[in-house]
Amino acid sequence: MKKILLLGAGRSATVLIDYLLANAPVYGWQISIGDVAVDHLASKLRQSAQVRTFTFDVQNEAQRNEEIGRADVVISMLPALFHPLVAQGCLRQGKHLVTASYVPPHIRELHEEAQAKGLTFLMECGLDPGIDHLSAMRLIHQIQRQGGNITSFKSFTGGLMAPESDNNPWHYKFTWNPRNVVLAGQGTAKYIENGTYKYIPYPQLFGRTESFQVDGFGDFDGYANRDSLSYREPYGLQHIPTMLRGTLRRPGYCQAWQVLVQLGLTDDSYTLEDSGRMTYRALVESFLPATHPGASLKERVAASVGLAPESEELRLVEWTGLFDEVPIGLENATPAQALERLLVQKWKLSPGDKDMIVMLHQFEYELNGARRKLTSSLVVLGDDEVHTAMAKTVGLPLGIATKLLLEGKLSATGVVVPLHPDLYEPILEELEQFGICFTEREQ
Amino acid sequence: MKKILLLGAGRSATVLIDYLLANAPVYGWQISIGDVAVDHLASKLRQSAQVRTFTFDVQNEAQRNEEIGRADVVISMLPALFHPLVAQGCLRQGKHLVTASYVPPHIRELHEEAQAKGLTFLMECGLDPGIDHLSAMRLIHQIQRQGGNITSFKSFTGGLMAPESDNNPWHYKFTWNPRNVVLAGQGTAKYIENGTYKYIPYPQLFGRTESFQVDGFGDFDGYANRDSLSYREPYGLQHIPTMLRGTLRRPGYCQAWQVLVQLGLTDDSYTLEDSGRMTYRALVESFLPATHPGASLKERVAASVGLAPESEELRLVEWTGLFDEVPIGLENATPAQALERLLVQKWKLSPGDKDMIVMLHQFEYELNGARRKLTSSLVVLGDDEVHTAMAKTVGLPLGIATKLLLEGKLSATGVVVPLHPDLYEPILEELEQFGICFTEREQ
Repeated sequence: MKKILLLGAGRSATVLIDYLLANAPVYGWQISIGDVAVDHLASKLRQSAQVRTFTFDVQNEAQRNEEIGRADVVISMLPALFHPLVAQGCLRQGKHLVTASYVPPHIRELHEEAQAKGLTFLMECGLDPGIDHLSAMRLIHQIQRQGGNITSFKSFTGGLMAPESDNNPWHYKFTWNPRNVVLAGQGTAKYIENGTYKYIPYPQLFGRTESFQVDGFGDFDGYANRDSLSYREPYGLQHIPTMLRGTLRRPGYCQAWQVLVQLGLTDDSYTLEDSGRMTYRALVESFLPATHPGASLKERVAASVGLAPESEELRLVEWTGLFDEVPIGLENATPAQALERLLVQKWKLSPGDKDMIVMLHQFEYELNGARRKLTSSLVVLGDDEVHTAMAKTVGLPLGIATKLLLEGKLSATGVVVPLHPDLYEPILEELEQFGICFTEREQ
Repeated sequence: MKKILLLGAGRSATVLIDYLLANAPVYGWQISIGDVAVDHLASKLRQSAQVRTFTFDVQNEAQRNEEIGRADVVISMLPALFHPLVAQGCLRQGKHLVTASYVPPHIRELHEEAQAKGLTFLMECGLDPGIDHLSAMRLIHQIQRQGGNITSFKSFTGGLMAPESDNNPWHYKFTWNPRNVVLAGQGTAKYIENGTYKYIPYPQLFGRTESFQVDGFGDFDGYANRDSLSYREPYGLQHIPTMLRGTLRRPGYCQAWQVLVQLGLTDDSYTLEDSGRMTYRALVESFLPATHPGASLKERVAASVGLAPESEELRLVEWTGLFDEVPIGLENATPAQALERLLVQKWKLSPGDKDMIVMLHQFEYELNGARRKLTSSLVVLGDDEVHTAMAKTVGLPLGIATKLLLEGKLSATGVVVPLHPDLYEPILEELEQFGICFTEREQ
């Protein structure tokens, strides 16, 4: 009887829990699920004798060690900052670890020790990072096996709304950490294009998008992620002339978000004076020069960013309520915190809303002297508010990888990222059974 | 015989040293001057028996303590980061301290201990901070004594070139730390205008200037400093509706600098890939989107910032050499470091160049029901490359304050900023003897 410890059972863990429950009787798993709050799991889990839930406090060292000590493999869906703590515990007690988060330096350092103990710390095995790696590596190896030389690889992912629930002018609602969405792109985006390193400063980022079409799902805009360069080496594309990773939004979003960035509303580096007594209208006013005294606030915002007041961008900005005399209601808020508080209300999921994950890979390569293009796209729709596309695409790769690990089908030890056939082949194959299928098109 | 220890004898200390030498015989001072390099002082100082120079290493604790121990007052012109070290030594051995730097938290903490020991740590007593405080406070107290209610105070300072040496299209050369000039304004400028807090994000800063005229010296543009709000309380202007502090440049500079900011050339937060093998032209290219493939680099830069290629801004940018195939010649450079390296060559003082300090205070106040305006301006010209306006305006207030301190004419103890009549009256009075005079104009 193999023992799985799942730490963290929030919204994006629902599908993973279902997967583990469904497989437990088949594979003889004993599952323990710990979270700060586990009451919401009660109804779902009553059916199964192979499951235990418990209130878990990651900061409680004794409990952490005891629970990790009982497990064969630990799946952590805790906030990423706790993963080094969990990894330390796994290393000490000789347990495998599976997460959907990027490898932080404190975990990278454990590689050799983990390897020496025959442990697998499988990281970046959710959606992004996760399915992006799996699907990209399958195509890269496929092209290379044919003798192709990849000259360009662009890859974009977005967590959006399914068309039936896409009913606000931004075509966006929060299905992920709102703070991360508000702060997205801060820093400088780095990529390489035709052999030239390219840098996009944050103030320009949302004005430098690329457009894409996905059959049956319409148009998307992609903006560059912060670091596309560091993926060249792990992907085996050290000398690729063009490589760009990015994030997808529906058309209109980036252009309007650019206005918020330019105004200064996404700044998280200082607190506003008297934010507790300020309205959103006054907040916007505080970013404007005291010119055009006769003009409306909307007209002055438009002038300050070089747009027409009746532009689509201004319509979207106005829709957020930023021009309204509504109190921010938050003491010592940064501009970004004030904006987040407003958007959390406006971009809230309604009952019945369904989300949508879109992933897009574009390759250009040379084969036998000819230039070719290959596009691979994935669209996953949520079933409902619980079985969201996000929960499916993050949870299923974690679940499948855990199964492979317990079945002894993964030979790699140490800190591992899923870039190799023994991971991407079985995981992508099983994901297809859940409707997570890429569509490829050669041009 | 009073003993003065001067630590730091770089370019801006020349006039201070002259002042101390001239006063030493009159007041019976013994002067010790320590710097990492003191050879350049040899010829100047041979004339005087009351002066000793020595090679000084601030990190050498034994030497630091020994030298401080011998002094009655320490003047530090070392880089500001060393001031807490020096202040600790002064506190331990019961010595007064005078500097031209802002009060850092580690010195602010020493206030009560210094006070208990009857010591004066006089900070911010150079030009900016320094003469700005002295002259502003004299006017504020003057207006308030008449019964005036100040409604607006704007204050700008600039270190520029004298008209006869103003011979490049930016109307600027480095007379101060180049790195600080390149990074100027990063963060968010905060001020208050008509009772409304105002924030200017860095990417907009150099596009939001105000114009000024100084009789006989033409036009200037001012951009806002990072923090104008924290001066309200020390100036006794807690409830002032408008307060802004800023920096002066000649017209054209800010508009062209805004192009460099928008491109991303002032970013100091990451290092460029392969900067050691990159030219300035390639650096500019790396910030541009791969659009308009037929257009020239200048045309594409212009398009990316929304200007005409033949605009004045682009002319200034081109003049710097940024469009030239000239190697950066610096490994692991940030964009800001690469830009600084270029500008250090272009904005270099030529033999005989004279600098110019301009300071401008604008007050609006109500007196007996009438609205009034008062402008006070200061222009100081350098005599030559050694006796620069910068060295005069930084060094003389330090020297005069040191004299007052040694004469027992300063009663304030603890950490002191020169905001009070017992400092501003004698210092401003003596500065006039050196041609440092403000011109006031009532409107």
